[in-house]
Amino acid sequence: MNSSALSRRGFLRGSAASVLAAATLVEAGVANAANSERSGLEPKETFDLVIVGSGFTGLAAAYAALENGLKNVLVLEKMHVFGGNSVINAGQVSLAGSGLQKSKGIEDSAALMKEDMLRAGQRFNHEALVDALVKEAPACYDMMVDCGVKFADDVIRLGGHSAPRTIFASNYSGGGICVPMHKWLRGKGVVFRNRSFVRDLIVEKDEVVGVEVVPEYDFDTKKGGEAYAVRAEKGVVIASGGWGSDKEFIATSMPPYRTLACTSQKGATSETIRMLLGYGAMPVMLDIYQIGPWATPDEFGAGAGSVFADYIFAEGIMVDSRNGRRFVNELASRRERSEAEMKCLDKDGNPVFPFGFCSEETTKNRPGFETSLREGTTKRTESVEELAALYGAPVDELKKQIDEWNAMVRAGKDTAFGKPIDKPIELRPPFYSIRFWPKLHYCMGGVGITDKAEVLSYKTCRPIAGLYAAGEVTGGVHGMDRLGSTSSTDCLAMGRIAGRNAALRKI
Amino acid sequence: MNSSALSRRGFLRGSAASVLAAATLVEAGVANAANSERSGLEPKETFDLVIVGSGFTGLAAAYAALENGLKNVLVLEKMHVFGGNSVINAGQVSLAGSGLQKSKGIEDSAALMKEDMLRAGQRFNHEALVDALVKEAPACYDMMVDCGVKFADDVIRLGGHSAPRTIFASNYSGGGICVPMHKWLRGKGVVFRNRSFVRDLIVEKDEVVGVEVVPEYDFDTKKGGEAYAVRAEKGVVIASGGWGSDKEFIATSMPPYRTLACTSQKGATSETIRMLLGYGAMPVMLDIYQIGPWATPDEFGAGAGSVFADYIFAEGIMVDSRNGRRFVNELASRRERSEAEMKCLDKDGNPVFPFGFCSEETTKNRPGFETSLREGTTKRTESVEELAALYGAPVDELKKQIDEWNAMVRAGKDTAFGKPIDKPIELRPPFYSIRFWPKLHYCMGGVGITDKAEVLSYKTCRPIAGLYAAGEVTGGVHGMDRLGSTSSTDCLAMGRIAGRNAALRKI
Repeated sequence: MNSSALSRRGFLRGSAASVLAAATLVEAGVANAANSERSGLEPKETFDLVIVGSGFTGLAAAYAALENGLKNVLVLEKMHVFGGNSVINAGQVSLAGSGLQKSKGIEDSAALMKEDMLRAGQRFNHEALVDALVKEAPACYDMMVDCGVKFADDVIRLGGHSAPRTIFASNYSGGGICVPMHKWLRGKGVVFRNRSFVRDLIVEKDEVVGVEVVPEYDFDTKKGGEAYAVRAEKGVVIASGGWGSDKEFIATSMPPYRTLACTSQKGATSETIRMLLGYGAMPVMLDIYQIGPWATPDEFGAGAGSVFADYIFAEGIMVDSRNGRRFVNELASRRERSEAEMKCLDKDGNPVFPFGFCSEETTKNRPGFETSLREGTTKRTESVEELAALYGAPVDELKKQIDEWNAMVRAGKDTAFGKPIDKPIELRPPFYSIRFWPKLHYCMGGVGITDKAEVLSYKTCRPIAGLYAAGEVTGGVHGMDRLGSTSSTDCLAMGRIAGRNAALRKI
Repeated sequence: MNSSALSRRGFLRGSAASVLAAATLVEAGVANAANSERSGLEPKETFDLVIVGSGFTGLAAAYAALENGLKNVLVLEKMHVFGGNSVINAGQVSLAGSGLQKSKGIEDSAALMKEDMLRAGQRFNHEALVDALVKEAPACYDMMVDCGVKFADDVIRLGGHSAPRTIFASNYSGGGICVPMHKWLRGKGVVFRNRSFVRDLIVEKDEVVGVEVVPEYDFDTKKGGEAYAVRAEKGVVIASGGWGSDKEFIATSMPPYRTLACTSQKGATSETIRMLLGYGAMPVMLDIYQIGPWATPDEFGAGAGSVFADYIFAEGIMVDSRNGRRFVNELASRRERSEAEMKCLDKDGNPVFPFGFCSEETTKNRPGFETSLREGTTKRTESVEELAALYGAPVDELKKQIDEWNAMVRAGKDTAFGKPIDKPIELRPPFYSIRFWPKLHYCMGGVGITDKAEVLSYKTCRPIAGLYAAGEVTGGVHGMDRLGSTSSTDCLAMGRIAGRNAALRKI
C-alpha cells in the first residue's frame, strides 16, 4: 500500500518553515492598504477572475467559474509545487449524496451531515455556511468525476459521521484529485502560474479589482522578480489555505500552542490572512486550531506513526513517562487527549513526551505499523524493563500500571478513565510503542464569509466588493472543531460557491 | 438590601443599543488608517497619557500612571455617564493575597488563583498575562483602599475559586469602587471628560502619539461637536471595554449568538475594537463570548431574576416548554446550560423559552427573590395546571416530570442528568418560576497584548509603539471562559500594568 495512504497528511521533506520577520515582509512587499496608485503598478493583464492558491479550493473555484461562463481565469500559486496541503493528504472527501454513495444504496442526507458537523463544531458553526456546503456536496462529486478523478469503489464511515459518506481517490492521495483537476482545467484554458506570490490586493473605491504579484518567488529566501499587477474583472478568490506552519503567528495569537509542530506543508504561512485583515476582513475563530493527539515528534507531519497511533489508543494505553501512569481516556476527543498530553511538562514548561504502547496482537495487519516500525517511529521492546528504560519511566510504576490495566481488561471496564474496552487484549511483551506530542493540524478560523463566499468586513459587517474566500483561509464552517475529512468538502464546496458567485456577479 | 446588590450587572434603563450603521460610522468619523496629516487636525493639547474609557481599567491605569510619576493624565469617556459596565456590576473583585484576605488569616496564593483561572479558561489562557495579573492582585487592593473605597468586612468563596478571595464594595455595587477612585483621581489633577468619543488614533511613523476626539458626543444620535486632536507624550491606553451590546457585530462574528440580548450598558459597542483592528492589533479569541444561562427575557440585563435563578437551578428544575421535560443538568457549566437552552427553537429557528421552577421552600431568604417576584420576573402559580398553562407546556408531561424528579430527590440521585442533589426538596405547589434565555455577558476576546499591556500587531507579531490596552477590550487573560468575578481583577491589575508601563516608557 502506498505510504501516502498511511498519512493523514504527509510532509514534504525540506527545511522547516521559516519565520517571516518584519524585514522580509518589507522585502516581499506585503503592503498594508496599498492600491495601484500607491505602488504605481499599472495592470499589464486582465483576467475575468484571479484565484490565489491551487489546492482543492482554487481548483474548485476555477471549475465553477468556467461552468458559469467565465473564459479567462488565472490561478496563482506561491510555492514551486502546486496543490498546497491538498496534495499531501489521504485524498478523502466526505459527501452526503454523492453519486458513488447513492450507487451503493446508502441512506444519508444533507440534514444528517449538517447535524454531524454542528455537533462536532459544538454549534459554534456559522449555520448558513454549513447549509450551503451540504447543499453543494453532490455537485462536488460530479465535478471531480467530470475532471477524470478516479475514486476507489468504496464509501466508508469515519468517526463522527452518522452514515458512510467518505470517498477517496483510488491512489489514496490528495494528488489523485488535484492532478486530474489541474490537467483538466489547463486543458480548458485556465492559466496556472507557480512561484507567484500575491503580495497585495488592488483596491479602487472600496472594491477589489486585482492583485499585485511577485513572480519567480522563492519561499525560502522570500525574494523574487519584478512585481506586476493583474486586473480581475469579476474579482479575486482567496484560496490560500491555513497557516499552521507559521510558528511566530501562532505563538502570538495562541501562546499555549507555541511549542507545536504542524502537519502542514512549509508554505502554510500567514501572509495572506494578515493581508486580508489589513483590508478589514472579519476575523472568525482565528485562534481556534485543531490539534492531533496522534502526532509524534519522531516523524515529519502526520505520517505512518500517526495512523498506527489510533490502534495503540484503541487497544493499548498511553502513560506519562514521568510516572508510568495513564492520565486520560485514550479514546476521548482529539482536543481532550491533546490537552492532556500537553500537560506533561517539566518545571521549566518544556514537553516531557508521554508514550503509548500495545501488544503484538494489535499490530497485525494494521495500517501504518510496518512503515512506522521500519522508519523507527514505532519501537519494539522485549520487556517492560526495556520499555521503561527507553522512555525514562519508573519501571515499578509502569509494571503496576500494566497489571492494573490488564485487570480492567479482564473485567471489561476502565474504572480510571472510562475508555471503552471492546476487545479483551491484555498488555504483554513484546511491546510496540510511540511517543506522542500534539501537532497543529488545521486552522478552524480565518476570515468571515457569507454563504456566497463573499468576504465580510468588520468595519461595515457587509461584504467587501470583489473579494471572495473559501477553504481553510475562512472561518465559521467548522465552528469549534472540524469533523474528520470535511476540510476537503469545505474546500470543494465553498470553492465552487466562490467561483460561481464571482462569475455571476453583476458589475 | 440594595437592589443592585442583587444584580450581576444591572442595566441602565433607556433605549436599546443602537446598531451602528456604516453611514453613522462616517458621521462619527471612524477612520481606517487616518493620521494627523490625513485629517489635518493639529493637536491643541498635550498630555503625558491619554486613557480611553473610565471604568475600572481606566481608573486603575490613571492611578498607576500617577504612581509612576506622570503629572498630566486625560481620561476620555464616550458616554454621558462615567464608568461603563464597571458601575453597574455587584462590586466584587477576586484577589489572592489582598490585605483584607490576609487580615482574616485565609490561606491562598497567586499560584492557586492562576490555576483556577487556567482551569476555567480550559488552558487557552495566555499564561504570561495570568502570571502578571495574579502578581499585581495585592497592589489592586491597596490602590482601592488608598482611594477611599469601602469594602464589606467579608471575603467570600465563589464557584470555581479554590479559596475565599472575593471581596466586595460595602454598597454591593461597582459604583462603590468607581466613584471614590474617580474622585480621588480628580483630586490629584487627572482630567476627566465625558461625552468625548475617541474616533481615531494619531499615528506617526508607526507610533501612536495621540487621539482625535469628538466632544459633546451623543451616543444615541452619533453626533457631536467639532473634533479636536490631543497629543499623548507617553502614548494611549485603551480601556474601552467590551462590545456585548453591538448586535450587528456579534451577528457577523458569531451568528449563533445573534438572537441574544446582553447584560452590558448600551454603550458597549464595537467602534474601538474595530479601530484597533484597523491599526493592525492582533485579534485574540475575538468571537468567544461568555453567555449566562441564568438570564431571562423578562428583565433588562442581569437583574434580580438572574440572581434568584441560581437557587432555582440548585434546588428546582428547568424544563423545555414544548414537552415539559428536563434537558440538562441545571448545575452544569454556564456554557453547557446556555447551549442547551439555545437548542429550544421552533422550526423557524426562533427561541421557545424554557422555564425553571421551584417550591416555596427554595424562596425563603434568598437574594433576588422578593425583588424579582415584585417585578414580575419570578411568577407564582398555585398548581401544576396553572404552571403548564402559563408557559404553554403539556400538563400531563409536566406532571410526569415532576413526579420523576421527586422520586430522584427521594433516592438522592439524578439518574437523568447527574445533577448533584444536596437537599431533599421535592417540587410541590405553589411553584415559583422564571423563563430563561441566555444573555451575552462578557467578551473573552479582544486585542492581544504583552504582559506589559502593550498591544500586539498581527503584521509584525510585535508591540505597536505607544499603544496599550487592558480589561475587556483585550483577549487572552481568560482563555475560553472567564472565572467568576475576575473581570474586575483583570481591569484593575492589567489597567495598573498599562498605566505603569506607559509611564515608565523611555521615549
